Amino acid sequence: MSKGKQTRQRIVAEAASLFNRRGYHGSSLQDLMEATGLEKGGIYRHFSSKEELAALAFDHAWNEALEARQHGIDHISNNADKLKQFITNFARRRPSIPGGCPLLNTAVDSDDGNPLLRDHARKALKSWQERMESMIADGIKARHIRAGVDARKLANVIIASLEGALMISRLERNDEVLHEAQEHLHAYIEAEVRTPNKRK
Amino acid sequence: MSKGKQTRQRIVAEAASLFNRRGYHGSSLQDLMEATGLEKGGIYRHFSSKEELAALAFDHAWNEALEARQHGIDHISNNADKLKQFITNFARRRPSIPGGCPLLNTAVDSDDGNPLLRDHARKALKSWQERMESMIADGIKARHIRAGVDARKLANVIIASLEGALMISRLERNDEVLHEAQEHLHAYIEAEVRTPNKRK
Repeated sequence: MSKGKQTRQRIVAEAASLFNRRGYHGSSLQDLMEATGLEKGGIYRHFSSKEELAALAFDHAWNEALEARQHGIDHISNNADKLKQFITNFARRRPSIPGGCPLLNTAVDSDDGNPLLRDHARKALKSWQERMESMIADGIKARHIRAGVDARKLANVIIASLEGALMISRLERNDEVLHEAQEHLHAYIEAEVRTPNKRK
Repeated sequence: MSKGKQTRQRIVAEAASLFNRRGYHGSSLQDLMEATGLEKGGIYRHFSSKEELAALAFDHAWNEALEARQHGIDHISNNADKLKQFITNFARRRPSIPGGCPLLNTAVDSDDGNPLLRDHARKALKSWQERMESMIADGIKARHIRAGVDARKLANVIIASLEGALMISRLERNDEVLHEAQEHLHAYIEAEVRTPNKRK
């Protein structure tokens, strides 16, 4: 990788941490210069605008968050258990970028303006929904998940419950509500989603 | 009410609409001057700082949101139905202050700084949780709600699901996910919360 590309990636990673904690408007050029140790010209020669940098920083933070949430999922064969692992990861594993969920932060930060950033957040949500939906649809095909389950609705119930619980936990500076959301969703999956084991 | 007090309240109401849409850092003094038609001195003679004004603006927006969410609840006698009405109000009634839920916005906006604003959001959440909890606890006493229901956990499940669904709906600019969260929570209340009617 060229030195220019390395610098660009380093700026994106530092900006991801800054924007995810302080938000788009709360992160100044001065903050970026301090975080990266670069001058204004050294930062903005790589990006056309603050908005472009923020959108790339969001993508970086989002990929880190997804990686934490998908930890160990590929090794699980039953998709009801995959859903449960995803939920556990969300509640228990902290992504490497501080400041909470990049999607929640950016959705709130950009919903009344900032179209490029909002567009990246919207695409991240869509790809997350689709990923969860196909996990559920594949589980129905494999008969691990009940045929009557609406994949899209269940995906949204899981995402909404976890994101809302994270908001509460961050405001309370205490993970209890997040852990309770995990228990609640796990119980829901056992009661209403997983195909009952007839041998039991 | 004195003219000074009237002006102060008008500034708080205009600031509530501004801060709730654009966030604390995204709302400039210039924006406030345009929204109120006042000069800097005319605004800040009433408040000690931007942070104080933002905290009062949050309280104003939060009271408006709570009022919309509690619409018609006092006329309902069964507390399982009160919970359902609260959920319906959250999903269907838009508060008078634009920009989404003030609690969600302010929680995200203030969680890595701004202690006064964060403190107001934390207290708003606590009072909301307690209000829902006593609605559930009273329902258990009146035998409208099952004795085994954990009031605190259920309150948090409802709050988290609705706030998370609102985040998704605002990002999608479409209320479908919010309406689905309403249906999901209503079904959950019928299946797991309401005392079964033995005469049925």
